[in-house]
Amino acid sequence: MAKLSPLAPKRFPNLPPVAGARIASGACGIRYKERSDLMVAVLAPRTTVAGVLTRSLTASAPVEWCRRALAGGRARALVVNSGNANAFAGRAGTESVRRTTAAAAKVFASPAKQIFVASTGVIGEPLDAGKIVAVLPRLRARLKETGWPEAARAITTTDTFTKGATRTARIGEATVVINGIAKGSGMIAPDMATMLAFIFTDAAIPAPVLQRIFAAAIDRTFNCITVDGDTSTSDTALMFATAKARHDPVRSATDPMLRDFRTGLEAVLGDLAHQVVRDGEGASKFVTVTVSGAASARAARRIGLAIANSPLVKTAIAGEDANWGRIVMAVGKAGERADRDRLSIAIGGVAVAAEGMVVNGYDEAPVARHMKGREIDIAVDVGVGRGRATVWTCDLTSEYISINADYRS
Amino acid sequence: MAKLSPLAPKRFPNLPPVAGARIASGACGIRYKERSDLMVAVLAPRTTVAGVLTRSLTASAPVEWCRRALAGGRARALVVNSGNANAFAGRAGTESVRRTTAAAAKVFASPAKQIFVASTGVIGEPLDAGKIVAVLPRLRARLKETGWPEAARAITTTDTFTKGATRTARIGEATVVINGIAKGSGMIAPDMATMLAFIFTDAAIPAPVLQRIFAAAIDRTFNCITVDGDTSTSDTALMFATAKARHDPVRSATDPMLRDFRTGLEAVLGDLAHQVVRDGEGASKFVTVTVSGAASARAARRIGLAIANSPLVKTAIAGEDANWGRIVMAVGKAGERADRDRLSIAIGGVAVAAEGMVVNGYDEAPVARHMKGREIDIAVDVGVGRGRATVWTCDLTSEYISINADYRS
Repeated sequence: MAKLSPLAPKRFPNLPPVAGARIASGACGIRYKERSDLMVAVLAPRTTVAGVLTRSLTASAPVEWCRRALAGGRARALVVNSGNANAFAGRAGTESVRRTTAAAAKVFASPAKQIFVASTGVIGEPLDAGKIVAVLPRLRARLKETGWPEAARAITTTDTFTKGATRTARIGEATVVINGIAKGSGMIAPDMATMLAFIFTDAAIPAPVLQRIFAAAIDRTFNCITVDGDTSTSDTALMFATAKARHDPVRSATDPMLRDFRTGLEAVLGDLAHQVVRDGEGASKFVTVTVSGAASARAARRIGLAIANSPLVKTAIAGEDANWGRIVMAVGKAGERADRDRLSIAIGGVAVAAEGMVVNGYDEAPVARHMKGREIDIAVDVGVGRGRATVWTCDLTSEYISINADYRS
Repeated sequence: MAKLSPLAPKRFPNLPPVAGARIASGACGIRYKERSDLMVAVLAPRTTVAGVLTRSLTASAPVEWCRRALAGGRARALVVNSGNANAFAGRAGTESVRRTTAAAAKVFASPAKQIFVASTGVIGEPLDAGKIVAVLPRLRARLKETGWPEAARAITTTDTFTKGATRTARIGEATVVINGIAKGSGMIAPDMATMLAFIFTDAAIPAPVLQRIFAAAIDRTFNCITVDGDTSTSDTALMFATAKARHDPVRSATDPMLRDFRTGLEAVLGDLAHQVVRDGEGASKFVTVTVSGAASARAARRIGLAIANSPLVKTAIAGEDANWGRIVMAVGKAGERADRDRLSIAIGGVAVAAEGMVVNGYDEAPVARHMKGREIDIAVDVGVGRGRATVWTCDLTSEYISINADYRS
């Protein structure tokens, strides 16, 4: 792996087993030498599945497969490779997915439609499904309830650290586990930095309900982060619920019994999403942007993302410069209602601008100190309503340029 | 000025006089030492005016003033300062514009509503109108029909060269002049790199007609360039027609008599817009992106801008890497219809991808040679319709980061 991000967490967390989910990882030699590049998860019968996939209109063949498979709501296995994204490979890409899923169906005794796949790595080169097919029997022999760090490692590409998160949650009388692993370090380079996230729980949740709570939680976590504003052709987030836990039946997404579970799920996804930002290519600072006073929560998020995606804001943060003028600019370009003369901005909790201009007697010293830290907080109130949102990003450094200018050549 | 952009034109062109327009420039000491920071243009009675202003919802006080003044369709003077953008300065900003326009109205014997203003430079600091007001009489004494390079120089901020363009055009029996000056080097930093463009012609064109042809030409030129996708709070393009030329009355924007004039105007604006890109902060390559096969011209432009704004595409170009995978990614994220399996891409005129995958026997050598040049051509056909558009941008280099990370501190 590349030099560890200065924003990396201390260590990979301790992920407990999830009843009904067994995993394995190994090397099939797609692109990397001497490292794992394939993980499989095999899931108990009755496992339900939910998913959120890239909105890219040039999505990869594996994404198209998952989109169709999700309609069935059931999953028996997940196969993920790194090294080749199987994207933009024409009919060969589709054929590669067909071969992989057919082989996995046989090895794991499952209908093909309940096999899920994801691929990340270079694009435009056909993925040789034969390499994956060849090692599936060996991985089946190695399936166990542990090995999460190895699985998380197998799906990485340009990541500088492996990403995992776990929580427990109460559903009625039962305590369930929610485990997640993820990869991603640009948001999101198509060739080596696609975002993938896989969540496993032993809760018993009907697929339509799972889809609703998963999509809502993704919306407040992964859909609120950005590294460079780019969208991968392969972004895939899938959640599997094995139904092994013993609790009363869940009937709807708004069932009060799910309250703690929804909180736990959002915590796992938030944790993983922040880790992706902390591994942002070249990132030296983790930035939290909170927008309030917008016309709606949706408007607040758009304004937050306009700030978080602005190269000028991001370079100012890299330069440790409390350049609030660039924040005003980004608010203006978001296309959402804002009152220039009621706008206020705080950096690191210190009021910088209020009522459309710099605050009286503004003392830059505490703000300058805050800008030198690793964790930067920007709060903006746009003065027109009650909509709020928080988004997360990192700074834009010369390192980002070198990583991306020199990557393929 | 900073180190000259490697993409700069050889020299400032020779701009002839425009009958009915007199200009002057000088130093009023707003921010810079030992250089001009103020230009004025005084225009003959009967001069009509058109304008296109930033879409930012946190636009500066001068922009708000121009928006209102444009409704009258008449102009007698233009006052432009650099060093302070008079943006986000609350009520003090509005008051500063009021004082400047009131003083200019007096000095140039004009209704205040026919005075146009533009400001560029740091934001968030009140602009001291007194400094401008104090030198207006001196500039009036120096007004003449020449001095375009000096005027273009006075309005620059982080620009590494001054920008001018000129053409002549036939309207009926008359030959008219179209002169333009511009500044801008990011697209567009709010604090020092706002885009300003001012066009002067001796043609006689009613204000509503002028507005239509000017807006249409801006749409195909300045609205098709991008450096970093950021939008200034102060972007201002104004066009003045002094009505000194002798030609038959122009009745509508579609009048065939205006055909050559429209071509000339678009050439002047295109020339200036390209110069802004060539002065893009840290730019080392000038990039032309042509999109065809889109659902509409508008869709084609959106796809083109998605490519031109993608940090991953721009860093790949900086790294001289023909990374067509990132182009596919950018097409996918544009949100416009594209057929992944009919997409084709050419770089430097060489087919790279066709029908959704790399071309058979693709030889990277000529493409790699093209990527080493200063002028990069990318052509993308998205395979769904007949919409076409061309956009222009520059690459994203470490130099961009240093300029913007270190600017204010």
